[in-house]
Amino acid sequence: MARILTGIQSSGRPHLGNILGAIKPAIDLSKQPGNESFLFIADLHSLTTIKDGPMRREFTRAVAATWLAFGLDTTKNTFWRQSRVVEHTELAWHLCCFTPFPMLNNATSFKEKADKLSDVNAGLFVYPVLQAADILLYDAEIIPVGKDQRQHIEMTRDIASAFNRQYNEDVFVLPEARIDDRLMTIPGIDGQKMSKSYNNYIDIFLPANELYKVIKKIKSDSTPLDEPKNPDTDITFQIYSLLASDEQTGEMRRLYEGGNYGYGTAKKALYELIIEQYAPVRERFDYYMANNDALETELRTGEEKASAIARRTLARVREKLGYN
Amino acid sequence: MARILTGIQSSGRPHLGNILGAIKPAIDLSKQPGNESFLFIADLHSLTTIKDGPMRREFTRAVAATWLAFGLDTTKNTFWRQSRVVEHTELAWHLCCFTPFPMLNNATSFKEKADKLSDVNAGLFVYPVLQAADILLYDAEIIPVGKDQRQHIEMTRDIASAFNRQYNEDVFVLPEARIDDRLMTIPGIDGQKMSKSYNNYIDIFLPANELYKVIKKIKSDSTPLDEPKNPDTDITFQIYSLLASDEQTGEMRRLYEGGNYGYGTAKKALYELIIEQYAPVRERFDYYMANNDALETELRTGEEKASAIARRTLARVREKLGYN
Repeated sequence: MARILTGIQSSGRPHLGNILGAIKPAIDLSKQPGNESFLFIADLHSLTTIKDGPMRREFTRAVAATWLAFGLDTTKNTFWRQSRVVEHTELAWHLCCFTPFPMLNNATSFKEKADKLSDVNAGLFVYPVLQAADILLYDAEIIPVGKDQRQHIEMTRDIASAFNRQYNEDVFVLPEARIDDRLMTIPGIDGQKMSKSYNNYIDIFLPANELYKVIKKIKSDSTPLDEPKNPDTDITFQIYSLLASDEQTGEMRRLYEGGNYGYGTAKKALYELIIEQYAPVRERFDYYMANNDALETELRTGEEKASAIARRTLARVREKLGYN
Repeated sequence: MARILTGIQSSGRPHLGNILGAIKPAIDLSKQPGNESFLFIADLHSLTTIKDGPMRREFTRAVAATWLAFGLDTTKNTFWRQSRVVEHTELAWHLCCFTPFPMLNNATSFKEKADKLSDVNAGLFVYPVLQAADILLYDAEIIPVGKDQRQHIEMTRDIASAFNRQYNEDVFVLPEARIDDRLMTIPGIDGQKMSKSYNNYIDIFLPANELYKVIKKIKSDSTPLDEPKNPDTDITFQIYSLLASDEQTGEMRRLYEGGNYGYGTAKKALYELIIEQYAPVRERFDYYMANNDALETELRTGEEKASAIARRTLARVREKLGYN
């Protein structure tokens, strides 16, 4: 049984890019018989950039509702809000004392953020240590990450090793990064990578008419209606093919290449596919957003499971440190 | 009613310098009718330099036993171990996100430690933020500190102000540093400031014969026995005068100046004064060291009081941050 741990950003309502690139693959992985997934909403990390309380609460609810809507099995797996398991921050402090200052000072992601953001706070600097605590608290074995996160997993391993070495005992499990090179980059409506910060995303939870409006804004070239079109350079086609069956995609390709098929019609087909395919997901999302108690019940169950494990790990740590 | 907060280092068994310079003044302050003192053993901070668990536990117990032996009233005041009130580390994370990175990077104490220590860990860097959490969690108004700590209190005020400004509300009380310029520097047996790191300290809790051995090692000059001696340049006299009544000190001065009074006799007088004056304290210290349950009972009572206050403050904070 492999313990897979994933931290979920809570810096906004998940869009199609998050869903196809992260949420669905993680849920697929969690369904494999040999796996047990630990999935937490990293709402403590979000404080490094988001200070607005109601906004964070709303984002956190929307993220939770999305994962539940996509069928995450919260009985088999563990799903919780980081901020509700107090052991994360306590372990982060302890680990800080085993983290060489220069390691953090040289972290690539901190340098990048420090260059880009106006608010360079100490939370951004300590971020990798909190991340190490997130991972080590659950004896996680596998951390699926993008290439940009590889360094952070290395740091987690270094910190855990320093601790284990100090006490000459395997107090912490050393996690492995699993870099998925096949990770899809989902194009946004302007053709760049779909991203909240580019404001080019498709929010599948919008009311139908608003969703259609967004899809109509997908960029296309000016090939006249009657001429054949190149599906491989068209954004609508690309997004369509990520959602459709092979058969549907083949059919759409023929229509593009045959001419007399306009981008507007293609967009309508994409819109209808989303509405059709995500009807049950949209319904469940709306249910959880409207029924906070149901959402809280799911999360609290996860929080109890997570806390029980975190407490046990922290007890091992506290014993070594002389805090027991 | 002024809320006075003091963090107590737990990096060793308190010596006479700690007792006269910090413990007794703090206990005197706590006895004033208008004051309510919050005194905590900073055993989380100690992890920045001490990694050995049993050593930390032993130091923490000895520190607690000393304060109790000196008559700290744990009913009127609040006395606890920092590591047992989990809100300290949680608030520290939140505050990190309101602490400008350059503020920490420019902190004098970090620079000094980074120059001096071989283990420059991230805990040393984040230390002032944990200290801010220690203070702000209890709405402390007055922080008695030495001059070297003034910058840290300024940082606490800056962090608290940034938070209050963000939410346009006085979520945190801004503490005031009270710098006591009259703070005594207690000479060690070599005449330098008494300090664990100089290994020149007098441990009043030693068995009597060992205590006497240490006192006999106090440095003195080579004035022959029959000649008059200058009390104002002699270390034994200086330490004696810190403990003795004015009358006793006057008498000792006369003996020094009269000649035919040897340093060995003066040292014996100092030894006897310590034994006599601290007899009940030594007894209570030994009692608490031998009766861990009694010590734990005192600390747990304080920990419950401290937790109740810390929880209330953190609830205010969490509400603002959207974690409620």
